[in-house]
Amino acid sequence: MIHPSPPARGFARDEYENRVARAHALMAAKGIDALFLSSEAEVRYFTGFLTQFWQSPTRPWFVVVPKAAKPIAVIPEIGAACMSHTWLDDIRIWASPDLQDDGVSLLADALAEVTERGGNIGVPMGHETHLRMPLADYDRLRSVLGDRAFCDGTAIVRSLRMVKSEAEIAKIAYACHLVSNAFEQASSLFRTGQSEMDVFRAFKIECLEQGVDDVSYLVGGAGPGGYGDIISPPSMRALEEGDVLILDTGCTFDGYFCDFDRNFGFGAVSDDAKRAYEVVYRATEAGLAAARPGVTCADIYQAMQSVMSDAGALGNTVGRLGHGLGMQLTEWPSHMLQDKTVLEAGMVITLEPGMTFAPGKMMVHEENIVVRDGGAELLSRRAAPELPVLG
Amino acid sequence: MIHPSPPARGFARDEYENRVARAHALMAAKGIDALFLSSEAEVRYFTGFLTQFWQSPTRPWFVVVPKAAKPIAVIPEIGAACMSHTWLDDIRIWASPDLQDDGVSLLADALAEVTERGGNIGVPMGHETHLRMPLADYDRLRSVLGDRAFCDGTAIVRSLRMVKSEAEIAKIAYACHLVSNAFEQASSLFRTGQSEMDVFRAFKIECLEQGVDDVSYLVGGAGPGGYGDIISPPSMRALEEGDVLILDTGCTFDGYFCDFDRNFGFGAVSDDAKRAYEVVYRATEAGLAAARPGVTCADIYQAMQSVMSDAGALGNTVGRLGHGLGMQLTEWPSHMLQDKTVLEAGMVITLEPGMTFAPGKMMVHEENIVVRDGGAELLSRRAAPELPVLG
Repeated sequence: MIHPSPPARGFARDEYENRVARAHALMAAKGIDALFLSSEAEVRYFTGFLTQFWQSPTRPWFVVVPKAAKPIAVIPEIGAACMSHTWLDDIRIWASPDLQDDGVSLLADALAEVTERGGNIGVPMGHETHLRMPLADYDRLRSVLGDRAFCDGTAIVRSLRMVKSEAEIAKIAYACHLVSNAFEQASSLFRTGQSEMDVFRAFKIECLEQGVDDVSYLVGGAGPGGYGDIISPPSMRALEEGDVLILDTGCTFDGYFCDFDRNFGFGAVSDDAKRAYEVVYRATEAGLAAARPGVTCADIYQAMQSVMSDAGALGNTVGRLGHGLGMQLTEWPSHMLQDKTVLEAGMVITLEPGMTFAPGKMMVHEENIVVRDGGAELLSRRAAPELPVLG
Repeated sequence: MIHPSPPARGFARDEYENRVARAHALMAAKGIDALFLSSEAEVRYFTGFLTQFWQSPTRPWFVVVPKAAKPIAVIPEIGAACMSHTWLDDIRIWASPDLQDDGVSLLADALAEVTERGGNIGVPMGHETHLRMPLADYDRLRSVLGDRAFCDGTAIVRSLRMVKSEAEIAKIAYACHLVSNAFEQASSLFRTGQSEMDVFRAFKIECLEQGVDDVSYLVGGAGPGGYGDIISPPSMRALEEGDVLILDTGCTFDGYFCDFDRNFGFGAVSDDAKRAYEVVYRATEAGLAAARPGVTCADIYQAMQSVMSDAGALGNTVGRLGHGLGMQLTEWPSHMLQDKTVLEAGMVITLEPGMTFAPGKMMVHEENIVVRDGGAELLSRRAAPELPVLG
């Protein structure tokens, strides 16, 4: 387990040079002349542009990665100062919002400049990707560049981002470390009589005090002998004796996420819930043992699912038993039978076995690991083998 | 000014019935047979489905609004429990993620069921909208429904969402109230020698302690005699005598945002910065006086800009002087010359005059108001008329 010190903010320039060099190699292999990127994670991956301003849906932000040159940013003027601190040289701005032409002409010019007629422009179009510009503007872009082909660039950004650098791993590890610290304060933070709302608030404040940048994601819930829903916001219901509480959080450090959960019981918890906890703990152990370079996500799934199936699990509404993480709360790949992605050293993933153990009662565990040549290395501090009971 | 008590969580059923009735009227007028919606705010607007799970980009979520019936949710199974607490009756689920067919067939069936061949399906495609599903899946959807027309539904969702109900206004007002309380603690939270990072952390914790659900958005910065960038994350630079600090935050209460900023000086601040503060304060006063039903966003812009131009403003990189807000940090309309939107009672907007007053030095103010028949009603507690100086 890692007890890291705070990593440096940002990345050295060679981090970005390496990313672009890998992109160029993949683009050459696929005959892609330029990548066109518009989402927060994609733009940040190639530039280092980090801002919460993406929460405003008003303005689009674009990056073009030519096949043999540094990325070009095509962005609203409001971002010029922030982007000027990145490693990019070519930053093109317009006065946004512009209700007639919100950067489309400027973007089309940039794409036309770095591609030939008949060339291929790669755009992420596949699973887990989104275009972050108005559809009508995208249609106009394609029309202006009608002599270029827009093709799917998902495989390129997916394979680049799935394998993390040591500098990226250090940021995720540190977020995990801080949130592990916060969860260790559970007995002083949570008690019966407290509303779920107050539980969430206390935990958010604790995470900030431990040093995370933002508690970007916190879901969970509590109920007698178990919970039935893990994505709802907190209710005003007060915790009672016999409740099981789950908190699942994605906190960030320098733009990188942790994503793991912890379960807590209050007072006399049902034996069924305790047994379910132990089953899912053992499923995680099986995932930890299985995760190493060369195995597939389907293998990881089966290693964990077989433990839960043998114990009589009634199913799972989550649809998978873990996933990648990094710049986003969830990233490719997915631990499920369909996903034959082969694990490589440097992948950061969650192990997230979960099961319904009684009607309307779920138990979900989650740990964060990095895949190393020797196997799984925990980034989150391992959950207790038995349900921690508070109060 | 409003000093509200905490509004009830959620909405009464008639809030949603009214939204859908208004949608049906607009759809009928435009010949739209069904709306297809995929983004967080759009889905929540018609259903009440509130979860931070949208931060995971993995799974798409869909809502179909037929022209004469209640909305239909087509969602991943993991959201079934959460969606079952909404007012919807027709909730269709699939086991997501599905790498072969992530809800596209189920969605196509729902759209086909509620439209005729040759019918029109409205999809938000315009300014400030995004499609939140993979482009390749959207292309497949259009191909499966090749005998329907996909047309722009932006005008419908835009005009619905721009005018808020009293229940919506109460949530925004309460978020503004809590954050106004937090800003009043500035003298005990911020001091010279503190890093921007620590300033941000202290303010986030204060907002949570005041009662906001989440500090979803906090940007700003500080510099000697002014700041040059308002969207960057905090640096490790320590505040010094003579600095001007801006904090601009969007905190949420029950899924509704405030969005306003405050400026603070430390020790002996330059006269230029103090003068700039007073100019922008007066610009806000002009905006407050101008904002009433019947005037346009362009009018509001001119009222504020003329004060700053007369005072020798060197321009503005923000591109507008305020905007709508509500379920998102920024919403339509925009206070800019291009935007001829006519203000109506019930619109919640920011007044956000800003200017560059010296090379690399900006001053930006922001207040949140609701437009009433009698004029502007402040939701944020009005900023001080002179730059507050701390320490």
